[in-house]
Amino acid sequence: MRVLRNSAALKAADCLSAQRYLAASARNARNARLNISPRPSAQRLTSATGIRCFASSTSRPNMESYLAKEPAAPEFKTASFPGPVSEKAIAELDAVFDTRSLNTICDYKKSYGNYLVDLDGNVLLDVYAQIASIPLGYNNPALREVAQSEEMVNYIINRPALGNFPSGDYAELLKTGILSVAPPGLNQVFTAMAGSDANETAYKAAFMYYRRRERGEGAEFTAEENESAMRNAAPGSPDLAIVSFKRGFHGRLFGSLSTTRSKPIHKLDIPSFNWPQAEFPQLKYPLEEHVEENRKEEQRCLDNFEETIKNWHCPVVAAVIEPIQSEGGDNHATPFFFQGLRDLTKKHNMLLIVDEVQTGVGATGKFWAHEHWNLSSPPDIVTFSKKAQTAGYYFGNPELRPTKAYRQFNTWMGDPSKALLFKTIVSEIKKNNLVEHTAEVGAYLYSALESLAKKYPDQIHNLRGKNQGTFIAWDSPRRDEFLKVAKTVGLNVGGSGEAAIRLRPMLIFQKKHADLLIEKVEEIFKKW
Amino acid sequence: MRVLRNSAALKAADCLSAQRYLAASARNARNARLNISPRPSAQRLTSATGIRCFASSTSRPNMESYLAKEPAAPEFKTASFPGPVSEKAIAELDAVFDTRSLNTICDYKKSYGNYLVDLDGNVLLDVYAQIASIPLGYNNPALREVAQSEEMVNYIINRPALGNFPSGDYAELLKTGILSVAPPGLNQVFTAMAGSDANETAYKAAFMYYRRRERGEGAEFTAEENESAMRNAAPGSPDLAIVSFKRGFHGRLFGSLSTTRSKPIHKLDIPSFNWPQAEFPQLKYPLEEHVEENRKEEQRCLDNFEETIKNWHCPVVAAVIEPIQSEGGDNHATPFFFQGLRDLTKKHNMLLIVDEVQTGVGATGKFWAHEHWNLSSPPDIVTFSKKAQTAGYYFGNPELRPTKAYRQFNTWMGDPSKALLFKTIVSEIKKNNLVEHTAEVGAYLYSALESLAKKYPDQIHNLRGKNQGTFIAWDSPRRDEFLKVAKTVGLNVGGSGEAAIRLRPMLIFQKKHADLLIEKVEEIFKKW
Repeated sequence: MRVLRNSAALKAADCLSAQRYLAASARNARNARLNISPRPSAQRLTSATGIRCFASSTSRPNMESYLAKEPAAPEFKTASFPGPVSEKAIAELDAVFDTRSLNTICDYKKSYGNYLVDLDGNVLLDVYAQIASIPLGYNNPALREVAQSEEMVNYIINRPALGNFPSGDYAELLKTGILSVAPPGLNQVFTAMAGSDANETAYKAAFMYYRRRERGEGAEFTAEENESAMRNAAPGSPDLAIVSFKRGFHGRLFGSLSTTRSKPIHKLDIPSFNWPQAEFPQLKYPLEEHVEENRKEEQRCLDNFEETIKNWHCPVVAAVIEPIQSEGGDNHATPFFFQGLRDLTKKHNMLLIVDEVQTGVGATGKFWAHEHWNLSSPPDIVTFSKKAQTAGYYFGNPELRPTKAYRQFNTWMGDPSKALLFKTIVSEIKKNNLVEHTAEVGAYLYSALESLAKKYPDQIHNLRGKNQGTFIAWDSPRRDEFLKVAKTVGLNVGGSGEAAIRLRPMLIFQKKHADLLIEKVEEIFKKW
Repeated sequence: MRVLRNSAALKAADCLSAQRYLAASARNARNARLNISPRPSAQRLTSATGIRCFASSTSRPNMESYLAKEPAAPEFKTASFPGPVSEKAIAELDAVFDTRSLNTICDYKKSYGNYLVDLDGNVLLDVYAQIASIPLGYNNPALREVAQSEEMVNYIINRPALGNFPSGDYAELLKTGILSVAPPGLNQVFTAMAGSDANETAYKAAFMYYRRRERGEGAEFTAEENESAMRNAAPGSPDLAIVSFKRGFHGRLFGSLSTTRSKPIHKLDIPSFNWPQAEFPQLKYPLEEHVEENRKEEQRCLDNFEETIKNWHCPVVAAVIEPIQSEGGDNHATPFFFQGLRDLTKKHNMLLIVDEVQTGVGATGKFWAHEHWNLSSPPDIVTFSKKAQTAGYYFGNPELRPTKAYRQFNTWMGDPSKALLFKTIVSEIKKNNLVEHTAEVGAYLYSALESLAKKYPDQIHNLRGKNQGTFIAWDSPRRDEFLKVAKTVGLNVGGSGEAAIRLRPMLIFQKKHADLLIEKVEEIFKKW
């Protein structure tokens, strides 16, 4: 498919897709869980700019007028990157805060929608979005409105210790926000602060659950357990493990880092638990052209998983896995693999923890990426963070609440101000059908990248993420150079693993942005 | 000293103390680090209520008018605790969120100043303050103002990945906020989210620093290190330890929990690192009456510390310690012990990490509790959270920045919205001399508790916290019962360790609140 860049053609294409979109919306309206009830109204499909056609058409001037004020295109102004104003500010920051991982020093007040503005005024189309953590664009008016609300002010200035002193409205806040998008089958939540502690508290829940079953219901802790736990020794502090997968990433604190297998730089010099890793499938792309050999590879990995956990020196109580390995290089597996993994964890009385920190909240064209899998039973635990702007883990089995109070506890246990922000994000996602929108725009973008890959076969290898929304990546033989040059054509884009360029646009990414992205990527290829 | 409760006497006493306070303020004005410049003005000392006399008297209508609107006294209205409205709300919350550690379900919109209001309208004088994490009272107007500011809105709706995409004003935000109160000798910060990850990232810095020195400057990681780290094995993932102290508390994630030694319930069933614990002094109170035997006990613990780290199975790279063991029971040690510990860590090339998560930000009558110690050299790392409303660790040695980028990193690396909140907290603390104020009110409260202890020697054991601001505690033979009954007289108070009642009032706690507290405590004793 040829990418349309001419504006008239673009309008036509967009509004054609908008019609398909409406049909999809109508189907989605039956999705009671998300409570979507679009009322199609054709005359509202074309906005003033002609190319912003949201799926359902209940009155939502905010989103349309918001995007109408976006810059028309990226604009790279400085002779080099970073420019002189940025250079100076970076040096100033570096005196007090390590800046060696600094990518761009930003002016967030000027950033808008899909566009990130740096201190020198360079305007970058942002398809990295704060490491996949901005859901609705910079300076989103709905978020602005809630940030200025009395609710938000109250939560900010009166931050509670939620486990001891929750506010009377916390149940309502959870139910109308975080829990309104709980993955199917899961109806409870433990709230946390970021991806790492979401995963670690999930691991703790898994360990306590394992020992609960081993100990027998109602059994009290023994004196020996109490005493030995204080010495970090068994049986109170037992030798138990979480299995993760090669190239997986689950965070950087001590427990989560022990399950992270992305790169040595993440792990070097830090003591870790002697926990196992299983093979993650290394599939051939495009997946649909390598069905049989990929199936074999996935079966090999399932066999390896079972061998690994059966032969480990201690009980392996849970497996943790990302739906798409993100930091590790955008590695995909098919539903066959995840179904097999679910079944193996059931067979061996293990928990399945799905780490949706990066994949969750809509970017894959489902609210949760694991909804693509059709598992025989839901994951036991699903963790979230990033685009949620808060964090935690969902679960369904009430026995995953530990046997006693204060076993899973900390002072803040989350943050109502962030829970309110997520509630608003959820509301905007639903109101604007942004999950379906992202599925649609993702398909459009993937298709355009397929065409580009045919034109530049030396530059785009292993294009992946088909039918995974905008969660798209490819391998580049000049990846690090690509990421740098991208800035000079007005793109902010990130990498993952050894060679991948990963796209992580926001949920408000439109087909026109996809066209711009393709144009800019081609501009880079043409320079080479 | 007899507690003054008569209002006329109280006014006189308060304003006498206010004069002493002014003198202290003038001295403090010379403290250039805190940039304090009070302009005494006697006629402003007595507010409309007659008993709120702030130390320095620059115009600060906000704080005075804020406190003037506080409830006059606690008010317990319901027949039982929790009352019927609370009971219903707790049941509703419990359906989705574990409430077994729930203490009070609150109405934060109605809470004010030092008073916490529950869902049934009970008005409690709050000397627990969200587990010591509320610095300036509920619905503080200065915090309200900043929460409504454009700065705050910007930070909330455009949350950056600080390590990659900091905003241009982050250096300024750090320098005028978090770093403006950096402990003497420390001038850099790594920002985090809560106490646990502040400590864990500090531990990671300590491990990387140890291996840097061991490896030799400029040495690259070997192939073997890179490969073994991915398997969680040495040498890439080395066997190294952090030593902590018996009864210490440093958090509940996997690394921090391995250093936590407070109670089995915090640790049971969770795998931990084989790290050592050293003896923490068990002193006799009041400290000034047991100088010699306490000195011996502290020397015994220093000797035990040295033995412990010398004989451990692997290198012990750092010691982590709280200035006052808080969760573990409000256990104190004297400057002699901490000076000795500093010297021993230097002698053995170890880092000293001071965990000021609970003691920091003014409550002990110094901004940082370790400023009471007069160490021979500053701690290497100081961690903070709670009353800072954000978290992280301070350090001074530039080599505590790891050798390469992305070694100490995560997506958010803190939160500018919380950094802005802390900046405002710091500004209010300085403007109102709240550290000195807390030292003064603490001395007053301690003295009143001493009198009460003489009157009720069976109820107040081991009163402690003299000259430690309001960071005061005592042991109670009926502790758990005391904490429950306290609610019914209108007090919200917390426990720590096995038998301690710990006071953690806010920095805006006044002498009149101290009087009320004493009155209510006595009311409980009189019931028994």
